[in-house]
Amino acid sequence: MTTPAKNLANFSTLVPVGDDKDRLVCNDCGFIYYDNPKIIAGAVVTEGKKFLLCKRSIEPRIGYWTLPAGFMELGETPAEGAMREAYEEATAQILIKDILAIYTVKRISQVQIFFRASLASPDIKPGIESTDVDLFSWDEIPWDTLAFPSVHWALKHYREVEGKDNFAPFGNPEGWENV
Amino acid sequence: MTTPAKNLANFSTLVPVGDDKDRLVCNDCGFIYYDNPKIIAGAVVTEGKKFLLCKRSIEPRIGYWTLPAGFMELGETPAEGAMREAYEEATAQILIKDILAIYTVKRISQVQIFFRASLASPDIKPGIESTDVDLFSWDEIPWDTLAFPSVHWALKHYREVEGKDNFAPFGNPEGWENV
Repeated sequence: MTTPAKNLANFSTLVPVGDDKDRLVCNDCGFIYYDNPKIIAGAVVTEGKKFLLCKRSIEPRIGYWTLPAGFMELGETPAEGAMREAYEEATAQILIKDILAIYTVKRISQVQIFFRASLASPDIKPGIESTDVDLFSWDEIPWDTLAFPSVHWALKHYREVEGKDNFAPFGNPEGWENV
Repeated sequence: MTTPAKNLANFSTLVPVGDDKDRLVCNDCGFIYYDNPKIIAGAVVTEGKKFLLCKRSIEPRIGYWTLPAGFMELGETPAEGAMREAYEEATAQILIKDILAIYTVKRISQVQIFFRASLASPDIKPGIESTDVDLFSWDEIPWDTLAFPSVHWALKHYREVEGKDNFAPFGNPEGWENV
């Protein structure tokens, strides 16, 4: 994904009228780029006692295993975003159950909303962003080659509430609040 | 707030290489504007049995009462965003308790995260986005002049879980899923 920082030849940083923060403003047309946190929508998807993971075919963390998750698009709910991502990454049709966790990665201004979900059909195969998809029992999870800290967090938080309903969503684990 | 739609003389809509969706791309410099949903962070702030509301000095819904809430900024958590907004709108220092609700307003691609919070100090006064701030008992709440549907939702959801801890956050009320 191209980020604003990569190509800003035409933008200046200034405080627009009525604002109190620096924003990127196009020198040519005055367009104001409000760069706000983005939402990652994803899911811990289970089939019985197994967990769906996707091996990434793209950077960052190419070749590492991740939960299906990605940037929410305009006009969808977080749950719809998580469903779309599961389909794009693993052609997985999923049933959303509830919200497992809301993590924040401040360094990259991401709010990550993870749901609990189950596979609606056993048909999974790699989508364009994956080289492999598979179902792992807890003991088979490739812990050493998971793509991101929040993949660890979500899997472990999932286990903490297995069989429970109606709980407050988890946040970042202790000690990881300011990542 | 200026939105992208207001000033796009220099942008074209096209699908960048490696993407599958239309994005706004600057004709001059190739800058890709990834327009994703934005997060509103806010809080139902109580002081004893009273609720903090702010009378809006800005559009949209100027002159109507709202909960302190606003767009999350880069580098903060949703809770920090809600605390900042309470300070900006009502100079209120608040203590965040837990997540009350996560609403989605698909039409404007907003995800609204509302917390339960209490006033840490009785000192409140209108910030730059408010003409008035006040504490209302439940029966005093100006229901007919609340600014947004989600202000109604959050207040009513707050009442449903008064005295309860560790609950799943509310979503949009039934019948309001596709607003």
